[in-house]
Amino acid sequence: MSFTPAEQAAMTRALELAATPGVPMVADTRRVGCVLLADDDTTVAEGYHRGPGTPHAEAAALAQAGESARGATAVVTLEPCHHTGRTGPCTEALVAAGVRRVVYAESDANPVAAGGRARLEAAGIEVETGLMATAADALAGVYQLAQREQRPFVTWKFATTLDGRSAAADGTSRWVSSAAARRDTHRLRALCDTMLVGSNTVAVDDPLLTVRDEHDRPVGPERQPLRAVMGERDLDPARRVFNTDAETVHLRTRDPHRALAELFVRDRQHVFLEGGPTLAAAFLRAGLVDEIVTYVAPMLLGAGRSAVGDLGVTTIAEAFRPVVTDVTVLDPSPADGAAGEQPNIRLTLRPARLHQQKEH
Amino acid sequence: MSFTPAEQAAMTRALELAATPGVPMVADTRRVGCVLLADDDTTVAEGYHRGPGTPHAEAAALAQAGESARGATAVVTLEPCHHTGRTGPCTEALVAAGVRRVVYAESDANPVAAGGRARLEAAGIEVETGLMATAADALAGVYQLAQREQRPFVTWKFATTLDGRSAAADGTSRWVSSAAARRDTHRLRALCDTMLVGSNTVAVDDPLLTVRDEHDRPVGPERQPLRAVMGERDLDPARRVFNTDAETVHLRTRDPHRALAELFVRDRQHVFLEGGPTLAAAFLRAGLVDEIVTYVAPMLLGAGRSAVGDLGVTTIAEAFRPVVTDVTVLDPSPADGAAGEQPNIRLTLRPARLHQQKEH
Repeated sequence: MSFTPAEQAAMTRALELAATPGVPMVADTRRVGCVLLADDDTTVAEGYHRGPGTPHAEAAALAQAGESARGATAVVTLEPCHHTGRTGPCTEALVAAGVRRVVYAESDANPVAAGGRARLEAAGIEVETGLMATAADALAGVYQLAQREQRPFVTWKFATTLDGRSAAADGTSRWVSSAAARRDTHRLRALCDTMLVGSNTVAVDDPLLTVRDEHDRPVGPERQPLRAVMGERDLDPARRVFNTDAETVHLRTRDPHRALAELFVRDRQHVFLEGGPTLAAAFLRAGLVDEIVTYVAPMLLGAGRSAVGDLGVTTIAEAFRPVVTDVTVLDPSPADGAAGEQPNIRLTLRPARLHQQKEH
Repeated sequence: MSFTPAEQAAMTRALELAATPGVPMVADTRRVGCVLLADDDTTVAEGYHRGPGTPHAEAAALAQAGESARGATAVVTLEPCHHTGRTGPCTEALVAAGVRRVVYAESDANPVAAGGRARLEAAGIEVETGLMATAADALAGVYQLAQREQRPFVTWKFATTLDGRSAAADGTSRWVSSAAARRDTHRLRALCDTMLVGSNTVAVDDPLLTVRDEHDRPVGPERQPLRAVMGERDLDPARRVFNTDAETVHLRTRDPHRALAELFVRDRQHVFLEGGPTLAAAFLRAGLVDEIVTYVAPMLLGAGRSAVGDLGVTTIAEAFRPVVTDVTVLDPSPADGAAGEQPNIRLTLRPARLHQQKEH
């Protein structure tokens, strides 16, 4: 493997493009980004996949580039596809455009779409692979898990004080998390296609479950994840989750497997599970949490609602020990800092079980 | 202020020397380090204060340097003292040795020891001050608080899971913290002069409360902090806290103020408060915690002993909101990592109240 600094920078950018928030993702699409580089390392064009039925990342970049694609290097987060689905094969588009070299991060695990590399090489295009493959794989993990398990990938998010509380003894919780942590949560919500909570949370906390911008205004309905409420109890239609900011569905089940199956049928690929603690514990015990995102606020309450519900753990050897994939300190903005806000710490973890599954 | 790069490097080293673990500290001593630099910026000698009755940092360095001190620059973390206590004044020693220039980080707040700068300048020595004063002040904070409040500085350490537990439902807690976090705890214990726990913790957990090395062997008795157990209940002399690894004292009181007063009378300057949660909560409620060190283990228990006891907080507005001074990810050693250990996160915090006190 040999990559130029410009190609490395372009791959970083392609991964950013691939992760553009607000793209509606359903279970047969993937987040892909593409950057076209000229011989002098300048960027000719960029593209990313915007969801089902729209051009692939390569096609989007080639369309933007036009004639300037000739002799260019295509830097792509995923092996270009070699099959005709809702769009034509990207391999043919790259060959036709006269691209000289293709650099991609990781191979396509979907056997139907594979074979891109061989086709490109047969057409005389130079191909290099493996650049930033780990980052690309993390991005693609949602898609791959959904395909393998035939259910949406589940990200469980919870906020906690340093002593494991999500609310004070009287139930007040505004705010445990800092403004920076809340903004970060909206960024992550926007990367998912479904918000999921229990009917009890809707009854007690009356959350909006929308993606909101820095002014706390909801982003457009086309960029809102589906709001899903699960549980058998009837819901008051006056609850805020039923407002017109986004679509909402009531899944009349208490079973995590069944709820995810219903969402998968609705083409849902990535569920953001926000509460409450009992529901999250049920998912965790069922082995249906694929990623945990925690915001730790440096605050002590000493009493109040536990951030995590009963997990059936009675002794230390049975503790859930997820694998830490990232620790980030979220500093307050200057204005938040002036108001006395403290840094919050975001931990991202993968359940060890999932990690083991990946090995075999 | 103007300092050479060599002086800046020497001050970093002097601060390291000052923080050498295992130095017995009592309430009228301070951690001080000194580096002597030759004209060509090479290090002539180093010294640090090793505790009461031993030479000051400057004297230790001058003794090591001998004749090479002539014309040297002395880089010291604290203004050289100008009074005769258990040792002679450092100012006179520096003048006699023929030192050409003195650079120190911060002035001595003790009026008895002050006046060093004026004396040095009167002797024709060039004096510069303020280099890395913030770091030096952090080092000296313990001493300064103890002098001002007439009680030891209190560092409260607790370990917690991500969901605020210190033990599972059946009481097992070995281990919540990673091996790296436990090693780090011993490093911090060694910087204090007193370990403090409640009698209930001794009865239930039977801790050793010693400083132990990487092989879990106690360091020498001369480097062990005093072990203090507070509470009115009688203690079983067979408990491990009464072994011969270190000295132990039983403070027959439940009152944090009284316990600290008794320790101050015994020349104790820095208490490391390790448990249990009820005792720590009593100190916190009494405003007697000056620093909080938390180790967060990325583990979920869902139930079990709370890491922090009742603080009398009933609503979110009353939450304790300490100020974060440091966040450090403690990665496992390669061997620990191979055994599946996860990174732990250490947070260091100062109570907001103390922070406010410092302002006025």
